[in-house]
Amino acid sequence: MLGDEIVSRINQLGAISEIGGQLVRVFLSPEHRKAADLILSWMREAGMAAHLDAIGNVCGRYEGAHPELPCLMLGSHYDTVRDAGKWDGPLGLITAIACVADLNRRGVRLPFAVEIVGFADEEGVRFASTLLGSRAVAGTFDQGVLAARDRDGLTMREALAQFGLDPDHIGAAARARHELHAYVELHIEQGPVLELENLPVGVVTAISGATRLAAKLSGMAGHAGTVPMAQRRDALAGAAECVVAVETFCKADGGGLVGTVGTISARPGAANVIAGDVSFTLDIRAPTDARRTLAVTETVRRIEAIAKRRGLSLQLDVTHENRTVPCAPWLKAQLAEAVAAEGYPVFELPSGAGHDAMAMIDITDVAMLFVRCRGGVSHHPAEHVELLDADAGARVLLRLIENFQPREAAGIVQPEHQQP
Amino acid sequence: MLGDEIVSRINQLGAISEIGGQLVRVFLSPEHRKAADLILSWMREAGMAAHLDAIGNVCGRYEGAHPELPCLMLGSHYDTVRDAGKWDGPLGLITAIACVADLNRRGVRLPFAVEIVGFADEEGVRFASTLLGSRAVAGTFDQGVLAARDRDGLTMREALAQFGLDPDHIGAAARARHELHAYVELHIEQGPVLELENLPVGVVTAISGATRLAAKLSGMAGHAGTVPMAQRRDALAGAAECVVAVETFCKADGGGLVGTVGTISARPGAANVIAGDVSFTLDIRAPTDARRTLAVTETVRRIEAIAKRRGLSLQLDVTHENRTVPCAPWLKAQLAEAVAAEGYPVFELPSGAGHDAMAMIDITDVAMLFVRCRGGVSHHPAEHVELLDADAGARVLLRLIENFQPREAAGIVQPEHQQP
Repeated sequence: MLGDEIVSRINQLGAISEIGGQLVRVFLSPEHRKAADLILSWMREAGMAAHLDAIGNVCGRYEGAHPELPCLMLGSHYDTVRDAGKWDGPLGLITAIACVADLNRRGVRLPFAVEIVGFADEEGVRFASTLLGSRAVAGTFDQGVLAARDRDGLTMREALAQFGLDPDHIGAAARARHELHAYVELHIEQGPVLELENLPVGVVTAISGATRLAAKLSGMAGHAGTVPMAQRRDALAGAAECVVAVETFCKADGGGLVGTVGTISARPGAANVIAGDVSFTLDIRAPTDARRTLAVTETVRRIEAIAKRRGLSLQLDVTHENRTVPCAPWLKAQLAEAVAAEGYPVFELPSGAGHDAMAMIDITDVAMLFVRCRGGVSHHPAEHVELLDADAGARVLLRLIENFQPREAAGIVQPEHQQP
Repeated sequence: MLGDEIVSRINQLGAISEIGGQLVRVFLSPEHRKAADLILSWMREAGMAAHLDAIGNVCGRYEGAHPELPCLMLGSHYDTVRDAGKWDGPLGLITAIACVADLNRRGVRLPFAVEIVGFADEEGVRFASTLLGSRAVAGTFDQGVLAARDRDGLTMREALAQFGLDPDHIGAAARARHELHAYVELHIEQGPVLELENLPVGVVTAISGATRLAAKLSGMAGHAGTVPMAQRRDALAGAAECVVAVETFCKADGGGLVGTVGTISARPGAANVIAGDVSFTLDIRAPTDARRTLAVTETVRRIEAIAKRRGLSLQLDVTHENRTVPCAPWLKAQLAEAVAAEGYPVFELPSGAGHDAMAMIDITDVAMLFVRCRGGVSHHPAEHVELLDADAGARVLLRLIENFQPREAAGIVQPEHQQP
């Protein structure tokens, strides 16, 4: 049973925190260093050559039957949000190490190398820029973010230097396409679907692309007592109609489309004053870019119609846009085989949250395995994975590794994912 | 034409402000004193005996055919909100003085006295307690508010003493019921109805009662990407449905009912997080208490049904409640006659905003005449009344005074309004 050691290591890593009583471990902190040293020791113990790369990722390599073979890369991140749970990131990393340790104990060598990367910054907490670790590995690290400052005013460039890394040589972390067969990431679901399906694991179809919009409706502020209903241009009533319209539209889709209004503010904002201006955000995600684009278009059309009918002026800006990252069908098929071979129904679901695989697709095909987490809760100390589910995830991943067929061997010649 | 002098005096009074470039004149400020002195001089010039009363109201009396006759009391307030318009309050006070000045010029003495009160604090800006001046006159001043503090920490008691008034003798401002025939207030509408009706004046039916509620809906916060639409308990989507339901219900009424959600806040309040808690306020007003009570009941029922259907918990508290103050039919009839005699269609409308008449009803029957204001704008420097409308209001008020019949003489024996 691999689960016991995984849970034990989750707890060890979860104890390395900047703050007592809660888990916080951000990029380039002393606790980042401490966590890295611990993970590197686990990698070496598992029979891997291990080092810290140019951005602070922990990298381990378990050689195949011959040296210098291309690798199957496994990984996840080991930074955390503030007041985090222990499982988001570390589960994938620790499970991968447990699988390699098992191969090593049994003396198994494969016709490919297995590499594991623990990414140094996925959450983007310290410098408000996500996927720093995986972007460095994929060779897409943006040098511009070196000037970003943390809340103490320190730049990323300064923080890297203090940590003992050379900000001018982050390029050294980048890998070449021919060195990798694929990237596979195990991660907690961070949502309630597997729990509702009563399944320990699920195969991810794609990391949903996201479009974020900022909307501002302007009408006419007025006295809550003196302006008859028929004469009002109430920006908050208009915004409320938009929120309901977004929910109704997304609910009717049923194909993984989600739409969320998470923030709203009304001005002037007094109980006895009709709101003249209301701002709100809109976050739309779907498992394919085509579906998301259609959904954004239709949502915008409905919001525009509501504003027009109510005589409200509307400003609507796209503030953020992420393409959908599809999981490679040939890899997904091998994951599904491993799930089935472990005796579980094969269940597919999209990932609504972002993951390092979003950056890794720039250098190789990707796939993801989700593990059930209690109540779908994540980014919260209550985040939890049952021992048996952690073990199930590990067994599926181990089986995938041992049976892994590189794309060419799996009969795929044409690349399935064209880079933009 | 009375309008010219009225507009000139509106501008003179509007120039007395605590702050250059905007109009602010709050209770017990040096500008309160300066404004009081100016108004007292106008009253004396109009042939009235005038004094500052125990709370800082300016009081003028124009004797009738004999001394000690009961009075027809006219009035409005001369304090302002911050960054106010010039007309809200002063128009009623200055118009009343202009009418008495006209009687005095013509040597007209009536079978009753005419008194004018300029109330020292209606807006409640300084001590967050409204109608202080008119409550003192009605004998309903709450001694507890003497302990209220302004934003500099000064108590009302201290501020009264500094102004030269004795906080222990505010009772001296109270008038006896037998001294008054009625209270009539001219005021700008502060809403858009008269402008839409293309009328300079309107007869107020009642000052709408108001119920204010604070609502809090609680669902389940979650990741905007990972929780499918069908699994959400989105407090903001629920609140939005409530806002739309309130608007739909009030719009369908058509009888002067108004409902307003003017504030809303969502927590945790991030673009990529489903809102777990949303608070909003609800302000409901209607021209009769029965209609308002029914509307509150029905609105609450609809909000409860929305919360229940969505699996949201609901906390709903009444934070404020004002009874409806009906204008006395016998007084309204005399106002209507005066309006018709001046050649205008008689148009009745409720007052959605509060006025000093709300306090005065505790001591006498009340009525109000509204004067059109541009765009319905009030509590804003853009507040404006046209010269011809100010003149129309004055002519109606003067005609009312000259033709005024006390309730008994008008054939009314039973009091029409029972005090609670």
